[in-house]
Parts: sequence; structure tokens; C-alpha cells
Amino acid sequence: MAAVGVWLIGARGSVATTVVAGAAAIRAGLAPPQGCVTETPGFPGTLPRIADLVFGGHDIAETSLRKRAERLSAAGVMPVALPALLARDLDAADAEIRPGDVPLARLTEDLTGFRERHGLDRVVVVNVSSTEPPAVPHPAFGDLAALEAEGLDLLPPSSRYAYAAFRAGCGYVEFTPSTGPTLPALAELAAREGVPFAGRDGKTGETLVKSALAPMFAGRALQVRSWSGLNLLGGGDGATLADPAARASKQISKDRAVSGVLGEDVEGQTHIDYVPELGEWKTAWDHVTFDGFLGVRMTFQFTWQGCDSALAAPLVLDLARLVARAHEKGRSGVLPELGYFFKDPLGSAEHGLAAQYERLRAFAGELA
Amino acid sequence: MAAVGVWLIGARGSVATTVVAGAAAIRAGLAPPQGCVTETPGFPGTLPRIADLVFGGHDIAETSLRKRAERLSAAGVMPVALPALLARDLDAADAEIRPGDVPLARLTEDLTGFRERHGLDRVVVVNVSSTEPPAVPHPAFGDLAALEAEGLDLLPPSSRYAYAAFRAGCGYVEFTPSTGPTLPALAELAAREGVPFAGRDGKTGETLVKSALAPMFAGRALQVRSWSGLNLLGGGDGATLADPAARASKQISKDRAVSGVLGEDVEGQTHIDYVPELGEWKTAWDHVTFDGFLGVRMTFQFTWQGCDSALAAPLVLDLARLVARAHEKGRSGVLPELGYFFKDPLGSAEHGLAAQYERLRAFAGELA
Amino acid sequence: MAAVGVWLIGARGSVATTVVAGAAAIRAGLAPPQGCVTETPGFPGTLPRIADLVFGGHDIAETSLRKRAERLSAAGVMPVALPALLARDLDAADAEIRPGDVPLARLTEDLTGFRERHGLDRVVVVNVSSTEPPAVPHPAFGDLAALEAEGLDLLPPSSRYAYAAFRAGCGYVEFTPSTGPTLPALAELAAREGVPFAGRDGKTGETLVKSALAPMFAGRALQVRSWSGLNLLGGGDGATLADPAARASKQISKDRAVSGVLGEDVEGQTHIDYVPELGEWKTAWDHVTFDGFLGVRMTFQFTWQGCDSALAAPLVLDLARLVARAHEKGRSGVLPELGYFFKDPLGSAEHGLAAQYERLRAFAGELA
Amino acid sequence: MAAVGVWLIGARGSVATTVVAGAAAIRAGLAPPQGCVTETPGFPGTLPRIADLVFGGHDIAETSLRKRAERLSAAGVMPVALPALLARDLDAADAEIRPGDVPLARLTEDLTGFRERHGLDRVVVVNVSSTEPPAVPHPAFGDLAALEAEGLDLLPPSSRYAYAAFRAGCGYVEFTPSTGPTLPALAELAAREGVPFAGRDGKTGETLVKSALAPMFAGRALQVRSWSGLNLLGGGDGATLADPAARASKQISKDRAVSGVLGEDVEGQTHIDYVPELGEWKTAWDHVTFDGFLGVRMTFQFTWQGCDSALAAPLVLDLARLVARAHEKGRSGVLPELGYFFKDPLGSAEHGLAAQYERLRAFAGELA
Repeated sequence: MAAVGVWLIGARGSVATTVVAGAAAIRAGLAPPQGCVTETPGFPGTLPRIADLVFGGHDIAETSLRKRAERLSAAGVMPVALPALLARDLDAADAEIRPGDVPLARLTEDLTGFRERHGLDRVVVVNVSSTEPPAVPHPAFGDLAALEAEGLDLLPPSSRYAYAAFRAGCGYVEFTPSTGPTLPALAELAAREGVPFAGRDGKTGETLVKSALAPMFAGRALQVRSWSGLNLLGGGDGATLADPAARASKQISKDRAVSGVLGEDVEGQTHIDYVPELGEWKTAWDHVTFDGFLGVRMTFQFTWQGCDSALAAPLVLDLARLVARAHEKGRSGVLPELGYFFKDPLGSAEHGLAAQYERLRAFAGELA
Repeated sequence: MAAVGVWLIGARGSVATTVVAGAAAIRAGLAPPQGCVTETPGFPGTLPRIADLVFGGHDIAETSLRKRAERLSAAGVMPVALPALLARDLDAADAEIRPGDVPLARLTEDLTGFRERHGLDRVVVVNVSSTEPPAVPHPAFGDLAALEAEGLDLLPPSSRYAYAAFRAGCGYVEFTPSTGPTLPALAELAAREGVPFAGRDGKTGETLVKSALAPMFAGRALQVRSWSGLNLLGGGDGATLADPAARASKQISKDRAVSGVLGEDVEGQTHIDYVPELGEWKTAWDHVTFDGFLGVRMTFQFTWQGCDSALAAPLVLDLARLVARAHEKGRSGVLPELGYFFKDPLGSAEHGLAAQYERLRAFAGELA
Repeated sequence: MAAVGVWLIGARGSVATTVVAGAAAIRAGLAPPQGCVTETPGFPGTLPRIADLVFGGHDIAETSLRKRAERLSAAGVMPVALPALLARDLDAADAEIRPGDVPLARLTEDLTGFRERHGLDRVVVVNVSSTEPPAVPHPAFGDLAALEAEGLDLLPPSSRYAYAAFRAGCGYVEFTPSTGPTLPALAELAAREGVPFAGRDGKTGETLVKSALAPMFAGRALQVRSWSGLNLLGGGDGATLADPAARASKQISKDRAVSGVLGEDVEGQTHIDYVPELGEWKTAWDHVTFDGFLGVRMTFQFTWQGCDSALAAPLVLDLARLVARAHEKGRSGVLPELGYFFKDPLGSAEHGLAAQYERLRAFAGELA
Repeated sequence: MAAVGVWLIGARGSVATTVVAGAAAIRAGLAPPQGCVTETPGFPGTLPRIADLVFGGHDIAETSLRKRAERLSAAGVMPVALPALLARDLDAADAEIRPGDVPLARLTEDLTGFRERHGLDRVVVVNVSSTEPPAVPHPAFGDLAALEAEGLDLLPPSSRYAYAAFRAGCGYVEFTPSTGPTLPALAELAAREGVPFAGRDGKTGETLVKSALAPMFAGRALQVRSWSGLNLLGGGDGATLADPAARASKQISKDRAVSGVLGEDVEGQTHIDYVPELGEWKTAWDHVTFDGFLGVRMTFQFTWQGCDSALAAPLVLDLARLVARAHEKGRSGVLPELGYFFKDPLGSAEHGLAAQYERLRAFAGELA
């Protein structure tokens, strides 16, 4: 089986640390692959094994992965005993983390260096860093030649990482709502380099539930009249989203799920609040009004209390495995079959969870 | 297009009254077919039209449909102006309601008389009466000849209605959790008479949501650890379910959805409480705990506030249309393709809502 | 017993219409005084009787009270039959509604004219109109002479009404979060004219619950760590609050309850959203995290689903009765004893509901 | 200051372990007295200091307190580092735990031995063991002489402990819903021996909230129409309450709060479910319907997610301190002033939380 590396942008963040610790725990037999979609029946055994993945990444933070894992375990994101048991693996990944605020050429060299050092057949770059504000549109974003002529410094950071990944022949997953590979110029580059990508904005909590429920209302011809929500977030992502500009990116992704399924806009907004006291945890409340037979008004509410890192990390492993395998099978450009994992599924207009799941299952079958 | 009659067992109850009033309102252009699955895109135009359905039924109550509709409108189940506007249609259906506590032969005659009086091509009997306790098993239930030899008085009331329906050449829908057509002897009769049936226990509220959400947890490999619920019911069904024996039937249906999807039993119970103050309304709270990556425990809660009659009535219209058309196309015996509508889908082990919906859509295509 | 008039600013709004219809329904014996605090045991019989109150007011809208009452009854705010039964009383109050956008002198004349026409001993003006933005501070607000020298046009509308009320010798209740009588210059005028006033921002729903619960946490030494909320509002007030400037007034009032009781600021915000589909109804969700023994983190959530007009109207009647009686007993200036009714209790730093209630009860005893 | 001992019935249970560990943590300066009512401003400094309390108790379990504390810390009931840091104090208390299933005379000897060994001025016995079924009434329960003649073996276990406490000259707190000191014969004994007692059933969660909210509805003249609830409990108490007989005791206590405040019975039940997966945690959902002005129906829901041991333990410390001090001040018999702490306040008909709090504050003043 092919040797696969996973290169994490934001490699010292909560999600990345959970990814590295989790893969190590699975390798050591200390935890089952709970939350990993690709480990459930029906997914092919030909995907790269979690236990064999090699990790590295970019970050500007300097706190060690071991220290980060200890903090996460104190916050209940993983068993307290785990960081010490996994120290060797955490340190190994730590040794492969490079500073993120470097010139574009250096990013590419970091990726090729990683691949060569470990003799990897393929590397998948996954962006799990902080959410950026929406990019200011620029004409050069629409055309690779124009972009390269105009200067790559125009690119927002996430898109610089995507550019570097494609130039280094790596697949790319945009797990945040940032711009990343969504510019036409970058899609052109991915096609030219023969590398696949997927995104964007991991569907881990409230939007996951929305995409399971909205088809229920649609199928039953129950007219959704309003859908409002409040997300309370602690942790790093919450702090980032306290910035209204970054929050804008997130809210756009979130609001697509319901209208995408129902085929029309619905009253109501999704609020995002930073509540530092919540730490690594997130609580979302959603309130839905809908009309049934003879116009009778009814109400549905839900409260989701989850740990974002624990929800995101296994999906990052799933995506890395699937993109690596798709790359191996010769796929390039956007992978619309992976929409199941994303709030804003690139290359697909399907937001209903069950339909996305069926498409993913079929895709996994093709990869076998 | 064929002329179709709908014969409602419990014809003066809240659901039946809403069915009759709703069909009349749609016919008169006073209401859209909100909540009717078969009126959404993708369902064939060859189904019997709602506006053409003719209604009758059995009941032991004597309050007129017009009076019942007035009470329902006061309780918010339909617009206040509607009962007066629909008086003629309500009275016409009222004139076709027969006493329910009569010998079996008479039930059959009532059905054939209804069909002949209105020159109907087909009649579908739908049980929307009060929930019965689970039937005490009897060896004769397994074999039609034995049952007819032993005496049909062994049958619980819902099964007597199913027997009468089949003998009269009518399709049958068991919309309650009662025994109805589920006995092997009755399946034998349906096959012999060439009539289709479907059931059981209309999936209108809490269980609908469960069946939309349970596949979400399963697909994401999130391990559900407990699923508890409390249903608060007013109205007629609530009063019936205040009887522990009747409640037993309901709880068995309800508990199947989650374990049916997850493939294993899960801790927790579903409580049903009769709260007369809630009137025609129902509130359900569900609490789910689940484990994600590295064993992190998370929680999901929902509250559903719905009007059962408004949720059930359009499904009764859907089922009557689909069963009539299936009958016309020569189908007999159980129709597993209609599992989408039921908590306890006869003939099918599939409880996931999206999978049930796809099967229904495919079936509707075959009926076109 | 003294004859008392109630003059409503915003006299054709939902709250005012419910006040007038409700008093008429109580007078006619068609409804019990549910929701009226002053009708519970322990309140003195010497308060002006609800049945004897005479209503008038200012508004710029022209829809008749009867039409407004019909709309409210269609929205479930009162029984459908009520507007027709109360037509005479609604029309009588309608005849006493004057245009609100008139010069200040005219406002005063409207009040004295109303008092004389009906031979009233006292009139209480209650502002139930739309919420204004917070007033821009001005030095003249601090001193009556300066204000009258500088020109009364400086005053925001609610304060113009308060000024007119005081000049006409009427008590005043600020039931909205607007500036109203809160300027020192106006307090000076009320003292000079010997009239009482109370306010501000009626505590009808979410904040009512907060002020009942915050003392529970404080008393038990449970450390509240965050308190977040989302208010979903339809109706007129919701539309007004869709304007961020007006919303600012409301949020300031709302956020005082918890910190006022706990004696310190707490993380978290209260969001207000306008959801037109909710009509006259309001839903609020609050989420509280708190720490107990040994730092254990716990969570409390509540959902309040109420009808603002139905909650506000009986309190308007209570306040009119109490302020009229206090006026009769010679009280002037702010009435801190009425803090029980308000989110932002003028003249009092007490926000705990039970303490406010005890103070109100003692005050009612003094008024007996 | 007097030396005070706390003798815990059920000394190796979750609550008792948290009590002992918590007092030790406070003594060591490792935790603030969060959750201790008597440590808030307004309570006198003359109460016995938490740091000086000496612990012992009865239990039939043999797992050491240190082991129990480790399990509780793994379940999130206390910081993971705490059990090791407090090992000496835990072991000291462990050495004072005696077998609970011994003859009555022996129970008394255990208490006097504990007092003498540690030179204590006073000992307070607190029952925090598993809930018993309601006691079967017996005529001898009404009269001490009859009881002693008839044989003390008639007494349920909790009452045997109360008897032993009184005979040994110890105060007693019934923190569970069990019979304990509530029999007239035992009240007679407490009076004769000059010892105080208080109870029963610690008000730690859902009922605490009920008793804060019910007065809000009553004060505002909002008519509560139904109050329903579901309690999901893991842990030891949950397992005990899975037994319908024991559950009966608990439900009786719980249902008193709302009717006690509102002065009338209200529709709806409180369900208790054992969900082992919840471990030491408890979730309660309550649903309240109420009517306001003109009969408008409104709804309130809350979800409480708490850790019972963390909520109960500081109250046990409060009660031990208050009862010891009352004993010192010469009080004997029931202490109705402590109703603030209990679901079923012995000696008092007051269930409203704020009124109970004021009474407690006044009592604490008298004890100063």
C-alpha cells in the first residue's frame, strides 16, 4: 500500500493536534476509530491505513504538540493519560512542523522535503488553520496566467497554501471557510498539475444536523418559515470568529445548507458568538418554524453540544485518505463526491446529508 | 381517472375530520396541499386526485363532522372560517358514516354499499381510530382457515376492520399501532383477495425526526450511547394512551426507529404522558448522548411541538392515493415501499428516513 | 373611588389594543384578570377598579382599534369572538385617540381635554409605542431651566410625551426602553408638578425569567460563567428592533438584569432578531454555564415562548392603577417601588425578582 | 470555636466522597468554597469552619475513599490531580468509616466513639445513602414509648440511623427522601435528647429551579396549566431509583415544590429514568404551559445539566455547620429555617426559594 503524508496548515491548533494524537492512539490500539466515516462497513480496505499516515505541517505558533495535547486533555478533548502515552508520535510530528509565515517558494520546498524525507508516494495538504475574512475579488483570480503575471502576493494566505500544495504535486483539502483553492486560477493549476482537491468548511456540528433535517421537512412538504440559530463557541476558532470579517466567511457557509436543500431562502439568521468560558466546546441552538396541513404552524428546536476538534479530527483523517487514494487513481481537480464532509461543498449543489452520503459511498466503491 | 373512496375507521376523530375538511379545502381552492408528499415534484400525476376522493367511514361517536371541525378550528388545527365554508362537504361525508360496533358481515356490507352508491372503482380503508392494546397471541392468527374455523370474534377490532376490508376487496392502511392486518391469517386473505395493504403507526412527529437523525449518527460513526424521550400528548390519542396497555403498543413502535437504524439497542426509554391541557398539540423532548473521536462524550437534544392531526391528515391522503393506485396496478399483499410513512414499516426492515424516501420515490415512479 | 384615565402613547399598537380590549373584557365579565398582579390576594381593594378605567391616547397610525383587535385575535392574542363583543368599548377608546405628531402644547391640551371631558380625577400616561434609539446626550437635559431655555425640541419623542404629561399634571409610565422621563430635567419637572412616574422597559419575558433565576445562582454560591441568549421577535416591536439603533436601547436594558443581581459582569451577549413569521409571538433561548463545588462546570438552558402583548397588557393596567393611587396619596417623582415591573428599574438598583416583589407588596400595603 | 464532627451515612458514596474531598481541598487552599451557601456574605463567621470539620461515617461498601475519589475525578466531578493531593485526608476519613449493617446499639457506640476519639463538642449525622422506598405506616411510629416497646426493628434503616444519632446526642440531617427522622416517635426522641434535625431530600437541581420559577408565575398571576418533567440520572442514585419503590419516595418530594408554591395541584408528572451512560451526571427537562391575559397559552421549557454530587456536597457542609451551631445554641427538634436546602422541607410549608432564603438568612443572623 502507498505511503501517504498529511500536511496540516495550522499544525499546532486544536484540530491538528487532535488529528495527530488520534491517529497515534489508533495506531497504538488505545482508541477505536470512532468518528471515522471511512472505517465503517462499506468503505474499501484499499484506502491508506490510518496507522501508516505520516504527519507534518505549517504553523506560526511554537507551543509543542505535546503541550497542546496536554491542554486538550485537560479540557476533556481526549483522555488525560493519552498525551504521555503518545509522546513519541507527537514529538515526531512536531519535528515536521515548519514556520508558516515564509515566502511561497519555501512552502513548496517544505512539502517536497517532507515527501522525500519520508519516502512518501503522496502528500495531502489539509487547511485546519484559523478562518480568514472573505477574499476581496480580483480579476487575476480568474486566470492562472494573469495571476502569475500579476504576482502571487495577491492571494490570501489559504490560497497561497493551496497554490504551494498544487505546485508540489499534493492534493489539498480546504477544511475551513477560507478562500483556499476556490479561485478559478487555482482550479486551473490543480488540473494542470493533475492533483485533486476538496472543500470547504468541515460540516461537523450544527450544519450537519441542519443538512439531516432540512430534507425531512422538504420530503414531507412541510413549509419551513424560519430557521434561526445561535452558535456559542469558545476556543481558538471562537476567538477568530469574534472578528466580524472572519465571521462573515463562516456565516455564508452555514446559511447555505438550509436554502440549498429547500431551494429557497428562509427567514432567520445564524448568529455566532465567542464565549471564551466554553473552551473547546460549542453549543448551538436552532429554532425552526414550519407550516403543515391547512397552514398549521409548528415548531422544532434543537441544542447541539459538541467538541469541535473531536468532531473535525476524524473527518480530516477520512479526507486525507480519500483524497490520497483519488490522487493515486488519477483524479484531479475538484472532488464533488466529498460534499458529505462540507458545509459549502465545492463542485456540488447537493446539501442534503443522505444524498451526499450515498454519493460518497458510491465514490468509495469506485476507489476500491 | 378512476373514482376512489376513502373509508375512515374512527371517522369522527380528529385525524379523520382533518382529512375530510382538508380534502374539501383543497378541492375548494381554500388551502394548498401543504404536508401532502404526493403533491411534491417527482410524484406522478396519475395518482387519484385529492379533489375527487369520496369519504365515508365507521365510528361509534355521534358528534357531527361539522361540530368536530368547529372544535378543531377553535383549537388551532384549521382556520376558524373553514368549517362553515366546507359545511356541505362535511355533511356529505357525515352522511356516509356508519356505526362501528356492528357484526363483521355488516362492516363488509357498509363498504360494498359505499362503493356501489358512489360508483367507485376502488375503496381504501384507513384506520385512524384509537390505539388498541397489543393483541394477545392466538394460534389461529397464523392461518386463515384456522381463524375462520375458530371464529372471527377472536380478532381485535382493528383486525376485524382489516378482515372486512379485504373481504370487500378494499385496500387497507393501518395508521395506528394496533394489530390491524399484521396477522399472517390476514396477509393470506389480502393475497387471496388481491388487495394491497400498508402500515403501521403513522410516522408524524418525534419518530420522524429520530429516523432522520439516527442515520446521521450512524453515517458519521458517532456512537449513540443513550436516547431518551418524553412525549406530552393532549387530545383523544393522549387519553387513550393514558391506558398503559394501549401505550405499550405505541412505545414498541416508537422504540424501533433508533435501534432499527443503528442496528443495536441503545439505552434509554421513550415516555408517553397524557396532559389534557395540551389539547390537540403534542410536545416531545429527546435527549441523545453520543461518543466521538477518542471517546469524547457529546449531547444532542430536540423539542418538537406539533399538531398531530395536521401532521397525520395529509399522510392519510397520500396513503389512500398510493394504495388505490397500487391496487389498480395489480399489487396485492403488503406494500413495503410505503415504509416512509410508518414508525413500524410492515414488510421492511429499513427505518432510515432518506432511504425510505428514495424507495417511495422509486415506487411512485413505477405507479406512473 | 376616584375616576382614573389611562392615556396610551402608541394607542393603536398591539399592547395598547390588548390593554383596551382586555379591560373591556374584564368589565364585561368575559375574562378573568389573568396576568394582573394587582388582582392577586394581598393587593388592596382601594386601587382604582379595572372596570372603571377610561382609555385614550396618541398615535400616528389610523387603523381602528376594532380592526387591530380583529388582527390580534386572528393571531391568537385574544379569543376570536372578543372584538365583536367589545366593539362599543373599542370604539369609545378609538374616539379618544389623537394624532401623535403634533406640537408639544397640543399634547398637553389633549391630556387636559381628556381629563375634563370625562371628569377624571387623575390621568396616567403610559408609553407603549415603538422603541427609540438611545438619546444623544445634551447638557440641557440635566437642568429644567436650561432645557426650557434651549428649546424643548431637543427632546426625543418619548421625553416630549413625558414633559407634556407632567405639565398636564399626569403620572407617567415608561413601558419601553426609550428615554422618556429619565432625564434629570424631567425628574425636576415631575417633582415641581407633584406627579409620580415609573419605568422603564416592561419586564415581560426572558428578562423576567433571568431575574427569577439569577438570585438562585447567587444564593447557592454557584458561579455564573456565561449567560448568552437569542430573542426571536415578530410583530411591530421586532420590526423596530431590526434597526440596530433601537436595538441598542433594548439590549442595554436586557443585559442589566443578570449583572445587576450577580454584582459583576458575565460573559455572553443577548441577541435580538426580527423574524416576521413569528407574528405577535416571541421565543427566547438562554444558555447559562456555571461552576459548582470544586470547579465542576454545569449548564442550564431555557426556552420561553410567549406573546408579548398578552404579557405586557395586564402590567400596564397594574401600573396605571398603582401610579394613579400613588398620585392620589401625594407621591411625586420616581417610584422605585415599582421596579418589579421593569427591566431597568428607575430609582432602584435591585434586579432580583423576589426582592422586587416584596417591595411592591409593601408599597401596595402603604397605598391601601 | 467548638470542634465539630460530620458523620456520613453512606460514607463511601459519591456525595460523601465529594464532601470529604471538598472539605480537604478547601482546607488545603486548593479550591474555593464554591457552592457553599454559608460562605457567602451575610452568613456569620461564628459557624464552625469547614477546614476544622472531622469526618467519619457508616457504609456497607468497602472501596476506599481514595479509590472512590479517583473514580469521581475520572468522571469529571473533581480535578484529576486532587485525589492524590488529598490522600492523607481521605485516608484519615476512611479510617473512621464503620460497617453500616450492624445492630442499633452498635451504631450509637460508633457515634460516641468517634466523638470521644476526636474530642468533638458536637457531631452531626448526615444521611447521604441510597434512597429507601416509602416506609409502611405502623401505629408505633407515632409514639416513642410504643415504638420502644414494639421493637426498634420496625424502623426502616434511615430511621434507625436517626434514632441512633438522637440517642448519641447528635444532630441529624436527612439529605435523602427516606423516612429518617420524620416519624413522630423520633421527633419526640429528638426533643427529649435536646438535639436538632433537618430535612429532607436535598434540593440540588431540577426542584431548585422549580422553586425559583414557580413563585414567578404565581406573582405575575400567570396560571400554570401543566408542569411535566423527565429526569435522566446515571450513577448510584439513578440505579437505586430504577427501583419503582425507591422512585416513589423521590417523586413525592419532587412534586411538592410546584403545588406547594402555587397552592394547587397542576397537571403533569415528573418522570425519573436511570440511564447508566450518564455516569455522575444528571439531565432534567421541564415543560410548563401557562395562561396569561385573555387566556393566551404560553410555554416555558428548561434543561438542567448538573453533577449531583458537586451540587449536594457543599450543601452537606452548610447543613452540618448550621445544625452544629443550632445545637450549640440550644435548639432541639426540627429546624424549619433550613427549608431552603430541601425538596420536602420538614416543619415548613414554604416552598418558594426566595422566601426560604430570607428565612435562612434571618436564622443565620440569630446563630451569630
